[in-house]
Parts: sequence; structure tokens; C-alpha cells
Amino acid sequence: MSLPATSVTELFAPVKDDLRTLTANLKELVGARHPILYAAAEHLFEGKGKSLRPALVLLVSRATMTDQDITSRHRRLAEITEMIHTASLVHDDVIDMAELRRGIPTVNSDFGNRIAVLAGDFLFAQASWYLANLDNLEVVKLLSKVITDFAEGEIRQSLTAFDTSLTLEDYLEKSFYKTASLMAGSSKAAGVLSGVTLAQAEQLFNFGKHFGIAFQIVDDILDFTSSTETLGKPAGSDLRQGNLTAPALFALEEMPQLSGLIEREFSEPGDLAQAVALIQSSDGIHRAKDLAKSHIKLAVSAIDWLPASAPKQSLINLAAYVLERLY
Amino acid sequence: MSLPATSVTELFAPVKDDLRTLTANLKELVGARHPILYAAAEHLFEGKGKSLRPALVLLVSRATMTDQDITSRHRRLAEITEMIHTASLVHDDVIDMAELRRGIPTVNSDFGNRIAVLAGDFLFAQASWYLANLDNLEVVKLLSKVITDFAEGEIRQSLTAFDTSLTLEDYLEKSFYKTASLMAGSSKAAGVLSGVTLAQAEQLFNFGKHFGIAFQIVDDILDFTSSTETLGKPAGSDLRQGNLTAPALFALEEMPQLSGLIEREFSEPGDLAQAVALIQSSDGIHRAKDLAKSHIKLAVSAIDWLPASAPKQSLINLAAYVLERLY
Repeated sequence: MSLPATSVTELFAPVKDDLRTLTANLKELVGARHPILYAAAEHLFEGKGKSLRPALVLLVSRATMTDQDITSRHRRLAEITEMIHTASLVHDDVIDMAELRRGIPTVNSDFGNRIAVLAGDFLFAQASWYLANLDNLEVVKLLSKVITDFAEGEIRQSLTAFDTSLTLEDYLEKSFYKTASLMAGSSKAAGVLSGVTLAQAEQLFNFGKHFGIAFQIVDDILDFTSSTETLGKPAGSDLRQGNLTAPALFALEEMPQLSGLIEREFSEPGDLAQAVALIQSSDGIHRAKDLAKSHIKLAVSAIDWLPASAPKQSLINLAAYVLERLY
Repeated sequence: MSLPATSVTELFAPVKDDLRTLTANLKELVGARHPILYAAAEHLFEGKGKSLRPALVLLVSRATMTDQDITSRHRRLAEITEMIHTASLVHDDVIDMAELRRGIPTVNSDFGNRIAVLAGDFLFAQASWYLANLDNLEVVKLLSKVITDFAEGEIRQSLTAFDTSLTLEDYLEKSFYKTASLMAGSSKAAGVLSGVTLAQAEQLFNFGKHFGIAFQIVDDILDFTSSTETLGKPAGSDLRQGNLTAPALFALEEMPQLSGLIEREFSEPGDLAQAVALIQSSDGIHRAKDLAKSHIKLAVSAIDWLPASAPKQSLINLAAYVLERLY
């Protein structure tokens, strides 16, 4: 599973040109008619490292079309995936009243809630429309399910804030809805567009699902182990909002005193810092890393059947890179 | 075009039972899993006179299926239509920071922006998912277009606030996007599900389009002619937000002094009241009524070809009723 330190750009190599076209297309598709959205689009589609999701779609597309070039539908699917992801980020930031994402101001903080709600709706709507025009009902169903899952994930997170009875299973389900569903649904959809078998399509779904769950677990670990500078937001942000992630849930098992701090919603001065310190000193981070590793293994084994190719190797390397972010 | 004073309930008679089932289904579909959305759903699907859009879908369905019962897909389409409409209202109220709608508190004022954004997203997502599962690509495209149009309409309204160079054509386009697109797209979709011809489907689109435009014009007139009690919000609300509607645009033609008040965004005390009084005393209301009438005539003539039936007569009566609201 180990691999030499590398950059994300290198990992995306087989689809580097595709991604450049995609970014240009997205800015045009979204921003062309409305200056107000153009500014938001510039803002949204320019951020570094934001192209993981379309890269996965393009890599799966190329890995399942080894003997021929990918089609315009594969490309459109990658664009739709990024639109849906971006729409969800914009609305997430309104919901969380977030001011920064990856260190740059959010749409709501730069343009206000009004524009942020509209921009998100517009992106979801555009995505649905382009989706319908792919003329493939199975793909429409797969991606519509993803949009429902986003809302489901956010609602669950909202309902279970500061709830120390949350189980690891609840957390994994929520992570699937919030993060992995898009990667699972869009990887499978790319395969469907390539004409893979039903069983292969299911395996592509599993690849995206386990990749996405591992990705979310790693993100949740980084919220405890990284500096504010690296994260682009204060460390412990999830916990402060009552979002109990893998490290916190594992820590709760060994440190019952943690639940008191969480249940009173960090209302006393120093509560949050104390809780973060408890989690950092617990075995929670380590156990969460093991959990992420196990999902990455499942992701990689789900694409075992793919014929050897540069894009397949990129998918495997990307999976390993998810874990490398921790070291 | 005149018809005896009647109640909306009577006009819905041929689909009364269908509508009762629909309301029960919607509450179940939306609220079942989430108490937080259940409260919002109760709130949303209980309001009086809110069922105009699904009633139109059901009436068109019955009017195009005269020899047999409507199908479960027709019913689902009506539910989807109401979900999309409701989602757009919820987000509109966030965008406009509205506190009341039809005299009852909005979701954002009762539950906060967070829940309102989520509830709207969830409804749009559910609608997209049920839509995909109608297994009819044409219907998916028609309704996806409607969702894009909503966002387009809101953005245009946002961009043209207080802009006195807005033309009547701009206004009609915006009204199509915001209001008529859903009625047009869903009426046509109902016909498509009944298997009407292409030309007939186009006519059903035109019926919904002109009905919707007239409906919006009448709504815009009532904003100047009704009391706060009747509207459930203060009279002149649109104008205060810089939303220039038919009566204001016509009044601007005869009263150049109006544009100064609008362009300074009613910043001086008494500006808004003065502007409302100017519009009320102008010929704008009268000319807007004539405009609404002409669109109702176009709507009615678009369904001339439908065989005589109780649901067809209801559609005609509903069209007349749109104008009757003015007297």
C-alpha cells in the first residue's frame, strides 16, 4: 500500500488534458449568461485540488474504455459530477455559516446567503438538466440518488449534532451519504456509459463507495491532527459544531469524561480545547486510520478485474494517496 | 369569460379525491423519515389553495385520458410538481428573507435558514429522484428544465432589481421562468404520459404557459390592489424589493417621476408610499388586467381540441377564475 511521496497532479496524469478542458467548460457552462454567477464560478472552479471527483470519473471512464477514446458523454458526466459537488459545497457553507473553505472566503461570505442559495440551486438545476440530456435513464437515476443522499446526509448530521449515542455505523452511513455516494454513483455511471457488465458496474460502485468513505475518515482525522494553516479552517471545527466523527467516536469508548463536554455543547470556557486534547491523546486517531486503511483495501480490490492500464494504476495510486495525506 | 362567483374547491371537483390522496402521500413521502422535515412538511402541504399546480396536472391528465382512469405515473407527476413548487417557495423565502407567506410564518422564520435550505434541497432532490423513476426521459427533461428555469427567474429578478430600464418583454420572460414554466412543463408532461400527439403536447405546454403568465400578472396586480390582510404580506412588497411588475412598468411609461423614486431605491421616507400611490392612480393596473386577460384567452384556446369533459370544463373555469380574483 506504500508508495513514494507524489503530487496529486502526477496522479491525475492520464486525464490531465481532460481536466483542463473540464475546468474551462464548467466556467463557461455556469458563468456565461450571468455575471453574478460568473464571479461565483471563477471562485468555485479555480480552487486547487478540487478536481478529485471529475478525475475519478475520467479515470474510470478511461480504464473501462482501454481500446478506444472516451465519449462526450463521459466528459459531460465528469462535468455534472463536479457541478453537483460544487452545488453541495455552496449550500453546505450556507448551512454551516462557514466563512472559509480551503483558506479562501466562501460564496456566502463573499456574496451573501441570497446569492449562495441561488448559485447552489442553479448548479443543481443545471446538473439535472445536463443529466437528463445524457439520454440514459440508469445514469439519471444513479445521479439523482446522489443528490437525495447529500440532503439525507446533511439532515442526519443536523439531527445528530452533539449526540454521543451516535454509533460508528451511523457515522459510516452519514459519511456514505455526504461524501461516498457521489464517488460511488458517478464511478458506476462512468462504467455504465462504457457498457460494462452489471457485476462490473456494481464493483465500480463499491470502488467509489469505499474510496469515498476512506476519504471522509481521513478528512475527519485531519480535522484533529492538522494546523489551521493546512486545513484552511480552525482545527476541531467538526467537533465544535457537534459533528462527531470517527476519532471522537473511538475516543468516547475509552474516555467517558468526553461525553459530558460534548453533551453540554462545549458551553464552558476551555471545553472544546479539552475535548480536542482528549481525542488527540486517545487511541481514536490510530483506530480511525486503521478504519480508513481497511476501506482503501476494499476500494482497490473492487477494481482488481480492470485490465492493466495507466488510468487503472492512477486509480490505485490515488487510493493509496488518500492515506498518504495522513503522514 | 365571465362566470358566476365560485370557490376553488368546486373548480377542483373532478380531481377532489385525487388531491386528497396527493396531500396525504406528500406528507408521507417527505416527512416520514425525518421529524425535522415532518414539521416543515406539515407546514408546507397544509396551506389552503396551495394545490393549484397538482390540480392542473391531474385535470390535464383526466382530460387527456377520458376513456380510462389516470395512471399511477400521472399521480406521481402531480406529486413531483407540488414538490418542485414547494422547494422553490422555501428557497424563495430564504432569498427574500420573507417572514410570512399567505399569512403564516415561513420555514426560514420558524426553523431558521439552515433547515430551510436543507428542506428545499431535500424536496428538489426527492423530486428529481421520483422523476427519474417515472422512466420517461422526455418527462425528465421537461421537468429538469423547469428547475433550471426557476433558478434563472430568480437570478434575473435579482439582477434587475430597481432597474427602470426593464422592458415588458423582460418581465414576461422572468414571469415565464418563475411561474409559468412549471405549469407549462407539467401540463405537457401529463399529456406525454397520456400518449397525446406531439402537436397536442405543444398545445398543453402553451395552455400552462399562458395560464401561468396570467396567474403571475394577476398576483402582481393584487400586490397593489389588495390589503395586507388579504395578501398575508404588506401591499407593495414586490416594489419595495425592487421587483418591477406589470403595473409598475406600465405606470413608468406615463409617469416619469416614478423612476426617480425607484432608482434611489425608496431611500427617502415616504418614497415607497408615494410610488405605490402613483401606480394605483395610473392606468397601469387597468393595462395589466388587459394583459392578463389576453393570456387567459390564449390559454383557453390552446385546449380547444380537447374532447368535452368535466375536467376540460374545470380547466376552462380555472382559467376564468384567475381573472375573477381581481374583482
